[in-house]
Amino acid sequence: MELITSNKVVGGWHKRYRHTSTTTQCDMTFAIFLPEAANHGKKVPVLYWLSGLTCTDENFMQKAGAFKTANELGIAIVTSDTSPRGESVADDPAANYDFGLGAGFYLNAIMPPFDKHYHMYDYVVSELPQLIKAHFPVTEQQAISGHSMGGHGALTIGLRNSDVYSSISAFSPIVHPQQCPWGVKAFTGYLGIDTSIWQQYDATALLSQQQFKQPIPILIDQGDADSFLEEQLQPWHLQKVAENINYPLTLNMREGYDHSYFFISSFIDEHLHFHAKHFS
Amino acid sequence: MELITSNKVVGGWHKRYRHTSTTTQCDMTFAIFLPEAANHGKKVPVLYWLSGLTCTDENFMQKAGAFKTANELGIAIVTSDTSPRGESVADDPAANYDFGLGAGFYLNAIMPPFDKHYHMYDYVVSELPQLIKAHFPVTEQQAISGHSMGGHGALTIGLRNSDVYSSISAFSPIVHPQQCPWGVKAFTGYLGIDTSIWQQYDATALLSQQQFKQPIPILIDQGDADSFLEEQLQPWHLQKVAENINYPLTLNMREGYDHSYFFISSFIDEHLHFHAKHFS
Repeated sequence: MELITSNKVVGGWHKRYRHTSTTTQCDMTFAIFLPEAANHGKKVPVLYWLSGLTCTDENFMQKAGAFKTANELGIAIVTSDTSPRGESVADDPAANYDFGLGAGFYLNAIMPPFDKHYHMYDYVVSELPQLIKAHFPVTEQQAISGHSMGGHGALTIGLRNSDVYSSISAFSPIVHPQQCPWGVKAFTGYLGIDTSIWQQYDATALLSQQQFKQPIPILIDQGDADSFLEEQLQPWHLQKVAENINYPLTLNMREGYDHSYFFISSFIDEHLHFHAKHFS
Repeated sequence: MELITSNKVVGGWHKRYRHTSTTTQCDMTFAIFLPEAANHGKKVPVLYWLSGLTCTDENFMQKAGAFKTANELGIAIVTSDTSPRGESVADDPAANYDFGLGAGFYLNAIMPPFDKHYHMYDYVVSELPQLIKAHFPVTEQQAISGHSMGGHGALTIGLRNSDVYSSISAFSPIVHPQQCPWGVKAFTGYLGIDTSIWQQYDATALLSQQQFKQPIPILIDQGDADSFLEEQLQPWHLQKVAENINYPLTLNMREGYDHSYFFISSFIDEHLHFHAKHFS
């Protein structure tokens, strides 16, 4: 594990690392924010953040404005990349932003040529947390959050592993990928046309089929001026299922907010407090 | 004046505009954060932020994490670009990052070919505030702040116009450009070799010669792990002069912090509170 950069921030530290992943079979970069408490030997819980299309580990760390509150609450934050990277890693033949590099969709691809490296589900669920636990002063407590494609990742990974995360949150998530253009394109490309395989990566399907061990709370924030809301995101699908099965899901529609990090930075403190409450 | 983007953030708005500048004779882009109070017709004071080498209006707005506190305090923030831009605008022949585009040094150039467009001093002092006052609900109250080259800009512009700004702050500023490599290169290229002309753009010289109408307070934060500290920034030059003439300057040396926006985001709230105190 190679340290790339290290910056002191709000009394804690932001550090970026590169490591060779056995899961994605390429070098992966991640970042960690360690609150001040962790400098003093205290073990802290971890919030995993999954970013959206085109992002890397850097977007959240630079733009979300999460550190002050995370530091006060004593929470570490880990941000992963959004896909495998490198010259050997297959990309969308058309190099579009919504498939291939920067668009791993937090699943395990089974279709060639993507099946070799695109195992972001296993990377986020297993390898990355193992690495974090081995190298940093963290407790077993974990929560997961994300934005857009990363909101999809947080919801699906959180539901399927509700025994290891205490809460899930998302900003502007893709909640029903098998019924939106981004999702259909990604699932077809990575998983093939057998839609029965798609279900395990669709939050609305997982919730509807009650594919979770325990009903860990979900918090979603969604701007009503988000240009992707109607065609891609459609959070009401998930909300309706949650209501039907009486699942603890809160969807906050936010008037006037768009899909950007300006939106995330406006409400990230509320998400951090939400996760902190469920850590304790 | 053309609106480029508009994002709701923390209840207020971040907006980017393009306009044709008579001062720099090219199109200029700036951004404004308007706190929620301004949406309700209340006039608010303005903090002008000047960024460092290579930056645009965007860096501070995306990375500083200033909006929550600015919103609470009811302060608008305006960020300018760091140089004129466009195909007709002369650049450093070697295209280095520290001269030419992205490196206007907040002065009025007199050396060809830079004398045509590089009038960032007049742009920041006159044209931009006039534009802001004409189009937005702002009071006459102004403060100025900046980072690195922009810290130099804030100090020199603030001191020379101490009747229109109520306070000055800076992160990691170049305080004595005529005695550091960045400054000597820029001043030689924009102003020529007559160093008597340089004095008006050197904060340490201005303070030493007491070139200010009133001693408005100055707050400086500087990280001691900043890789530019010893060669370029040297804040002790300004601090020593301030002590000699009993000028109200506070220099906070911050242990372990570097030159990045992670540092700025760690202490920007304190700067906003400092400016708010002097607005009232």
